Amino acid sequence: MNCSLISVGTELLFGQITNTNTVYLSQKLNVLGMNVLYHYTVGDNPARLKDIMKFALEKSDIIITTGGLGPTQDDLTKEIAAEALEDPLVLHQPSYERLESFFKRINKKMTDNNIKQAYLPQNAEVFQNDVGTAPGFALSKKGKIIICLPGPPGEMKHMFEKYTDKYLRKKSSHIIHSKMLRFFGIGESALETELLDLITEQIDPTLATYAKEGEVSLRITSKRESMKEAEDAVDEMVEKIKSRLEGYIYSYQDEELIEVVAKKMIKHHISISTAESCTGGLLASKLTDISGISSVFDRCIVSYSNDSKIEELGVKPETLDFYGAVSRETAIEMVKGIKKVSGSRLCLAVTGIAGPGGGTEEKPVGLVYIAMAFDDEISCKKFNLRRSGRSWNRNYTVLLMLDMINKALDKKLINRQLSHL
Amino acid sequence: MNCSLISVGTELLFGQITNTNTVYLSQKLNVLGMNVLYHYTVGDNPARLKDIMKFALEKSDIIITTGGLGPTQDDLTKEIAAEALEDPLVLHQPSYERLESFFKRINKKMTDNNIKQAYLPQNAEVFQNDVGTAPGFALSKKGKIIICLPGPPGEMKHMFEKYTDKYLRKKSSHIIHSKMLRFFGIGESALETELLDLITEQIDPTLATYAKEGEVSLRITSKRESMKEAEDAVDEMVEKIKSRLEGYIYSYQDEELIEVVAKKMIKHHISISTAESCTGGLLASKLTDISGISSVFDRCIVSYSNDSKIEELGVKPETLDFYGAVSRETAIEMVKGIKKVSGSRLCLAVTGIAGPGGGTEEKPVGLVYIAMAFDDEISCKKFNLRRSGRSWNRNYTVLLMLDMINKALDKKLINRQLSHL
Repeated sequence: MNCSLISVGTELLFGQITNTNTVYLSQKLNVLGMNVLYHYTVGDNPARLKDIMKFALEKSDIIITTGGLGPTQDDLTKEIAAEALEDPLVLHQPSYERLESFFKRINKKMTDNNIKQAYLPQNAEVFQNDVGTAPGFALSKKGKIIICLPGPPGEMKHMFEKYTDKYLRKKSSHIIHSKMLRFFGIGESALETELLDLITEQIDPTLATYAKEGEVSLRITSKRESMKEAEDAVDEMVEKIKSRLEGYIYSYQDEELIEVVAKKMIKHHISISTAESCTGGLLASKLTDISGISSVFDRCIVSYSNDSKIEELGVKPETLDFYGAVSRETAIEMVKGIKKVSGSRLCLAVTGIAGPGGGTEEKPVGLVYIAMAFDDEISCKKFNLRRSGRSWNRNYTVLLMLDMINKALDKKLINRQLSHL
Repeated sequence: MNCSLISVGTELLFGQITNTNTVYLSQKLNVLGMNVLYHYTVGDNPARLKDIMKFALEKSDIIITTGGLGPTQDDLTKEIAAEALEDPLVLHQPSYERLESFFKRINKKMTDNNIKQAYLPQNAEVFQNDVGTAPGFALSKKGKIIICLPGPPGEMKHMFEKYTDKYLRKKSSHIIHSKMLRFFGIGESALETELLDLITEQIDPTLATYAKEGEVSLRITSKRESMKEAEDAVDEMVEKIKSRLEGYIYSYQDEELIEVVAKKMIKHHISISTAESCTGGLLASKLTDISGISSVFDRCIVSYSNDSKIEELGVKPETLDFYGAVSRETAIEMVKGIKKVSGSRLCLAVTGIAGPGGGTEEKPVGLVYIAMAFDDEISCKKFNLRRSGRSWNRNYTVLLMLDMINKALDKKLINRQLSHL
């Protein structure tokens, strides 16, 4: 089925907010096997919204609107949708009661404006709003479907995931199943090259790649008669891809690398501390953004100055003089230092040249040393990052550290399993 | 003048990338006094692009397209734009020569596909592409203007700033001038309330607010006969706003708070170190994202565990036992500790409950203590953040610390100026 998305809101036309709703809905609709043909954005202007609605109805089977469901005079999406499919608005008792109890709870008087939100097209399937006041709905009439969702991304996503997704799956004669694989250490074009035959001959399952700073995701989607068939088709494709690229895959469930790593450390009670120079605490700040990490994360020393490397981590002044702050020797002394002060099982240290200044011919911008101490084992890796942007270099360095941790944890956990045999 | 934006690219309809071009262009066009009425997104499909182009031409005076100017068969924006205004494509010699020298430089053969990029509408004003291969252009004909820009945001922004902006200013009979003020410590609706009379009666200059996580920006724009008049009108409005809200304004030049703070510290050689618990190194990682900060940033201790607070910062075990890790007493001992080990002039320490777990009735999620030691002066502030999201709390806490630093620096610098009298 062909779809169009209409985003309603003058703030979008002023560039005051970024339209993330279209990204979310496009991805979701593609997973459901629908063709998204157009996105439209229009302000809170009834004449223009009517024009766009008419144009969109000519071009597609399903229209999904976001925004314009609020209680004010400006909010007219619902009225225009109902008019387009000639369905009268009537008071929807369950929505009215939800509103009433909401206002009671927050101890505010419900105004006529608010009651407006409980009027919905007579033949609509109503989607209740569990995190806001505006209900959404789907109206199927005259061979077309108009779905109206609230504009705030949190409300829209919650409603889509809980109600709209199910509604659309019912409308489809097929069952859709998909999995998102996440990769690190391989670029989007290299990934496509490795899977070229699978991508070229794809009919079902389909493969779609998504690139994000330094990472690539791959969505595998199957549309079949039954869930079992769809799951089998996806799993079979996952196995094929795994057999070629297993070393690069860090999640089969669309998780971030930081989540994967944090979960493993928390689950297996592996304590961690870091000593960071060029990343300036970025790894620590990302780790500590994960709820529950306090059971394993002990400390981080951001040893930016040479003095701090000497005083906090016991790096020898001679090492800094002779090899320099950005060297294998310094990285190893840093990791030994953080290991000594923290006593954590897993310690990471990093030193590098983030740029844009500070590079030399011998030690260019992008040169990074990462040292790891896991129990008694110490290792150090050297990287030459190709990009020269400071933020990019720092972010990518953190991903490199997480990837090293992830692989070391996997190795350790496998070894432990083996030694238990 | 009324404008529409057309974004061309199938990857947008798959939700593979977020459309940031429309945000940028909408803001720029609003500054130029243009009314943006519609955004459209369409895939690399000639029939649909034609339909949209026709619809857009009926509704607006100026159409700006992004994307679809590449060398492949799919890229047809230029062809469809030229056809819409009935202007033939001809070889544009300067563009051809630029392409030729580009391919010479990268030592690759120029194909017929590449030459396609040098064909442009006969009557177009060409915008050369300084950072990519696809030139852009503006074609004014039949009372309409179509402007075609490349899709990659870096290329598009560069071209707009350097060429398209000037072109559009020439088309306007007025001179436009604007300034962006940035605020911290006041919400968007409170700001609007404070400026309600100015916002209500606005004709020129106009005021537009933009909210971002914990911060608000205000753009003041004037459209006048001469630049002097426009600048005077904007400056007069800035003074009015300053007289009401000076304490909340941290930039009159659209800078981030972190930049403002880092610049001042670097300029006045004020060394800084931090001790972070709940923010986990986030302040340090943001400070060290600023190029040149190494001249003043010394170190950070992320003292997440109680042990690390005792061992690295000399917090007394009794203080942790009696007052708890999240307390004024602990924050002050932390800041004394980081001051002692680093010797930095300016030291910050933070401890708090980021959530979602860990809160109690007495110490709820969002409770934060920030201690500051500037030379010999030590202070500590307590905050109760209302939001409960972990990431939001951590980000906002960093903004609070930056705001404290910014105000302390201003006070110190003013005192120093006075003592020099």
